[in-house]
Amino acid sequence: MFLLTPVLAAVACILIVWLFKNAGRSIERRKGEPTGRTEARPWMDEDFKDSTDLCQVEEDADESQESEENVEHIAFSHTRYPEKEMVKRSQEFYELLNKRRSIRFISNEQIPMEVIDNVIRAAGTAPSGAHTEPWTFVVVKDPDTKRKIREIIEEEEEINYLKRMGHRWVTDLKKLRTNWIKEYLDTAPVLILIFKQVHGFAANGQRKVHYYSEISVSIACGILLAALQIAKIVLKELAFITFLIL
Amino acid sequence: MFLLTPVLAAVACILIVWLFKNAGRSIERRKGEPTGRTEARPWMDEDFKDSTDLCQVEEDADESQESEENVEHIAFSHTRYPEKEMVKRSQEFYELLNKRRSIRFISNEQIPMEVIDNVIRAAGTAPSGAHTEPWTFVVVKDPDTKRKIREIIEEEEEINYLKRMGHRWVTDLKKLRTNWIKEYLDTAPVLILIFKQVHGFAANGQRKVHYYSEISVSIACGILLAALQIAKIVLKELAFITFLIL
Repeated sequence: MFLLTPVLAAVACILIVWLFKNAGRSIERRKGEPTGRTEARPWMDEDFKDSTDLCQVEEDADESQESEENVEHIAFSHTRYPEKEMVKRSQEFYELLNKRRSIRFISNEQIPMEVIDNVIRAAGTAPSGAHTEPWTFVVVKDPDTKRKIREIIEEEEEINYLKRMGHRWVTDLKKLRTNWIKEYLDTAPVLILIFKQVHGFAANGQRKVHYYSEISVSIACGILLAALQIAKIVLKELAFITFLIL
Repeated sequence: MFLLTPVLAAVACILIVWLFKNAGRSIERRKGEPTGRTEARPWMDEDFKDSTDLCQVEEDADESQESEENVEHIAFSHTRYPEKEMVKRSQEFYELLNKRRSIRFISNEQIPMEVIDNVIRAAGTAPSGAHTEPWTFVVVKDPDTKRKIREIIEEEEEINYLKRMGHRWVTDLKKLRTNWIKEYLDTAPVLILIFKQVHGFAANGQRKVHYYSEISVSIACGILLAALQIAKIVLKELAFITFLIL
């Protein structure tokens, strides 16, 4: 049992800012608002916006009352562990997390959907700017959809390696022996696509700014990685900043 | 024991891109390179850069061989849990994480430094763009330093509320009943400051680009939050994007 070949199951986490306008339809959505509604803009503009919230002065309608009544308030309760227990638990967590690796060879063994649901739920507990929860998690299991995703990603990555990112980036990556071929996107039983919602919509249909959305989504990804490691699910995380096909 | 008032200990996590050039000296550094060496530039330029790595073509010297020999390679081993155990563990992790809250009233009870070390170590296991590990964690316990940090943050936050961020932001935050007074920065026994390293330095002293540094640091923050919750340490996380005093 302990000598079994390692990679038993896999999840690829992809951080995509904007997926092309209509492709989301064929993919099962697990949480959040449809990204298909979002207004397409040159990606650099959007990415820039995320980092420049400090300058943003949008004087749109007041939406602070939006869905206030739907929020369930849960009283906070807390029991502190004895110091020894604190130390023990933090030590064990570190040791477990320290075993996580970014694996590029992934087995096709299935994972119970309940586990996938739980890790995404855990990720959704992340804090976010102004509590906007600006993330959408999409779980893909269908082989054809996985294949299409792989094709899109490989196409974009090839451009990254060959021209977009430049000599320096390619050189820096050399020691990691990576390239644009992502076979594991076909092999893995489950892909989790993670979308950053640059903005959402209020109940009245108006745009609602999501502050610090990239930071918030990335924090949620950190918790997702921890949750996967807790369940000892092997994964290949993959950061994709941008996809924009108008 | 179960009825004890909640907030027993606290950690404030502050994500700061660039701290002013010299102030870092009085603060104990726990990991990473001195930020003091970094070249100061208008923050927007730097933030923008982080989101536009795709366009970046720096043709500086090749540094791919840098410190290759110092890297310890550890063979990957993996044992898969039975499905039932996977489900159970992921469920328990979700339930525990779901109890995390962003607390604004913090007790001054001490936390063993070993626990702080462990949670930062856990955060440091996060994946990062091209494995650059672009983070610096700074632990602050000294009351005078905490006071200075509080003063700086409150001053900046007051500007945020009164003019920098605009009407929309202030309106969006209203329902959270927050303001620029951060008393807990004095009260909390420990502050963890988290710095994003936009770039580092190679062994030969040359600048080394850190790809996707903001995403990488935020993922590490997600793991840090999980680790703190595992040890049941109550915290107030606080995202600060920018500090730049030339």
